[in-house]
Amino acid sequence: MPREQALKPSPRRRKQALAIAPVPINVGMLPNLLGYNVRRAQIALWRDLARSLGEVKVRPAEFSMMVLVDSNPGIAQIELANQLDVDKATIVGLVDQLQRQKWAVRKQSTVDRRRQGIYLTALGQRELRRLEQTMIEHEARFTRLFSSEELTQLFAYLRRIHP
Amino acid sequence: MPREQALKPSPRRRKQALAIAPVPINVGMLPNLLGYNVRRAQIALWRDLARSLGEVKVRPAEFSMMVLVDSNPGIAQIELANQLDVDKATIVGLVDQLQRQKWAVRKQSTVDRRRQGIYLTALGQRELRRLEQTMIEHEARFTRLFSSEELTQLFAYLRRIHP
Repeated sequence: MPREQALKPSPRRRKQALAIAPVPINVGMLPNLLGYNVRRAQIALWRDLARSLGEVKVRPAEFSMMVLVDSNPGIAQIELANQLDVDKATIVGLVDQLQRQKWAVRKQSTVDRRRQGIYLTALGQRELRRLEQTMIEHEARFTRLFSSEELTQLFAYLRRIHP
Repeated sequence: MPREQALKPSPRRRKQALAIAPVPINVGMLPNLLGYNVRRAQIALWRDLARSLGEVKVRPAEFSMMVLVDSNPGIAQIELANQLDVDKATIVGLVDQLQRQKWAVRKQSTVDRRRQGIYLTALGQRELRRLEQTMIEHEARFTRLFSSEELTQLFAYLRRIHP
């Protein structure tokens, strides 16, 4: 039962002889940690996505940002930071990156000239359509491991972790 | 139902007027992506852990490595890479980092002199005991969001994603 095991620290120290590590490896407390399993799941997902994306690599954070900018043309950097739960400096770096790739631009808002918004370029929109397609195929390779009920449950659990 | 929604691309482009982004933000396809939810959960977990660790910051990968080295004194870098599902270069960087902090050392194996193994120092072991305690408290803040049955299920789901 993960809960009980997760609360139990790994066994006290054995003598540290200079011996070869036993095979199979003793993985200690790791498999019973929620954080470890979430991170391993994230690594597996990221590896599959990176492979699927081919030449043009896009980090998950960049993809998320493109989706948000696409759905909210003129969105402010601070809104992106809030929405994606990352700090402003990270967002500025990501927008710079998208701008270098000519996928996004920063423009003054026509409604409030003190305000700068972010917009996808036509090139960025085309790229996002391609990415969305890749993303859908990538997602399907994992979601098909679950029944519809299980998937609903998994989503609910993950949202409980990130409220 | 996440599965159906995840497979549906975001609605086709609306006119991109230079207007302020609507509030609340339209999050497009993101909430229905498994990858997005796993990443958000990972960010929430990491933020809580970073806060709990206080002055001495340790990345999740470093912690995992220390647990493995502690449980397998003399483990080889390649075994760490395989076990943690990251590339060898990343492991070399992490071991360098632990060595700079005097938490770990690389030593020639007494059994096979061609082989170099990684060992925690006494300082590294003390640090790991402290980290484990922090980790257990950090984990509990999340695991208590779930019943024992739910937690068992969540672990099983996550392991299905990272086999």
